[in-house]
Amino acid sequence: VDKERFYKQIDFLLELDKLKTIQRRSYLTNGNRRENSAEHSWHLAVMALLLSEYSNFPIDIIKVLKMVLIHDIVEIDAGDTYCYDNIGNSFKDVREKRAANRIFGMLPLDQAEEFRSLWEEFEAGETPESKFAAVLDRLMPLLHNYHTQGRSWKEHGVTKSQVFERNSHVVEGSLVLGEYIQNIIEDAAARGYLSETDR
Amino acid sequence: VDKERFYKQIDFLLELDKLKTIQRRSYLTNGNRRENSAEHSWHLAVMALLLSEYSNFPIDIIKVLKMVLIHDIVEIDAGDTYCYDNIGNSFKDVREKRAANRIFGMLPLDQAEEFRSLWEEFEAGETPESKFAAVLDRLMPLLHNYHTQGRSWKEHGVTKSQVFERNSHVVEGSLVLGEYIQNIIEDAAARGYLSETDR
Repeated sequence: VDKERFYKQIDFLLELDKLKTIQRRSYLTNGNRRENSAEHSWHLAVMALLLSEYSNFPIDIIKVLKMVLIHDIVEIDAGDTYCYDNIGNSFKDVREKRAANRIFGMLPLDQAEEFRSLWEEFEAGETPESKFAAVLDRLMPLLHNYHTQGRSWKEHGVTKSQVFERNSHVVEGSLVLGEYIQNIIEDAAARGYLSETDR
Repeated sequence: VDKERFYKQIDFLLELDKLKTIQRRSYLTNGNRRENSAEHSWHLAVMALLLSEYSNFPIDIIKVLKMVLIHDIVEIDAGDTYCYDNIGNSFKDVREKRAANRIFGMLPLDQAEEFRSLWEEFEAGETPESKFAAVLDRLMPLLHNYHTQGRSWKEHGVTKSQVFERNSHVVEGSLVLGEYIQNIIEDAAARGYLSETDR
């Protein structure tokens, strides 16, 4: 056993514990607390297993699993940037790239490169796998918001047109899930979970 | 789209949110709170990606991923049974089988059968994949305990010989990780994180 390699892997795995302390904006469906990015990543992985039949394209499921499992690791340093926070998002790229360098850089070179490239592929959203992973990453928070009567939308004054725009690309990954997402947004607005008027 | 199938999948995914509220005995390495079973499952999945090279046998990594992602879902109904709780463990099988029937039974039949059979394979621990998944499921809580000065061991008066026995099968899945686990236990006992004396 290459001990240096092994201890790099263990140190990285211990570092990952921090993702369990990164709070997202969405609340659990029981409304008791915000979701953290580690449990969110788990939820997307199980979704990937169950919903892959709705991808527009044939996908390599292991690649989708890897992507959703690691897509938020950079938040350990960069924090969770709320998708409707324009200022935060303008600096997001720089912060997340620096985070990727440090955190993935803890791994042995081959694994660092694999994770880094999976993360970049996910961020770019140009391949069938990354498009499908993005759909999952949109759908689950939408369901969380819907099942908490739009709690996090209301807290941040999010409007229907913002949510539509945020979800405008999901049809590229899955027509079926894209249509479902559209129906949820319409229904959420009709129920008053989402504001109809732009500020 | 088969709507009945689709809504079964979505209802199951919403049900999974409850796993985020199931508390395990181990504390996060920062010691702030106990870990929940959803984030634990995520952690094992990333471990599987990084440590598969230490399996004694060639393994189908997708199968290992599926197993660790779903291995604790039954806890939604059955709760987390502490591995050193003899009374709790004597009823664990019955409780968990009932839970598996209800929860996996929410899925469309083909997916219910797949998840059920993966969970049974994990529980039986007889295949290369389930043996390796079991190693991961032992190693991570050990690291959590070690990095919190044996906090959860101390709270429950767990002894070195109990931890050795609990981990006696890990070498079947991975000699490398089995040896590492043995060293951690010795070191933890030497540091007083684990009691040397049986009660």
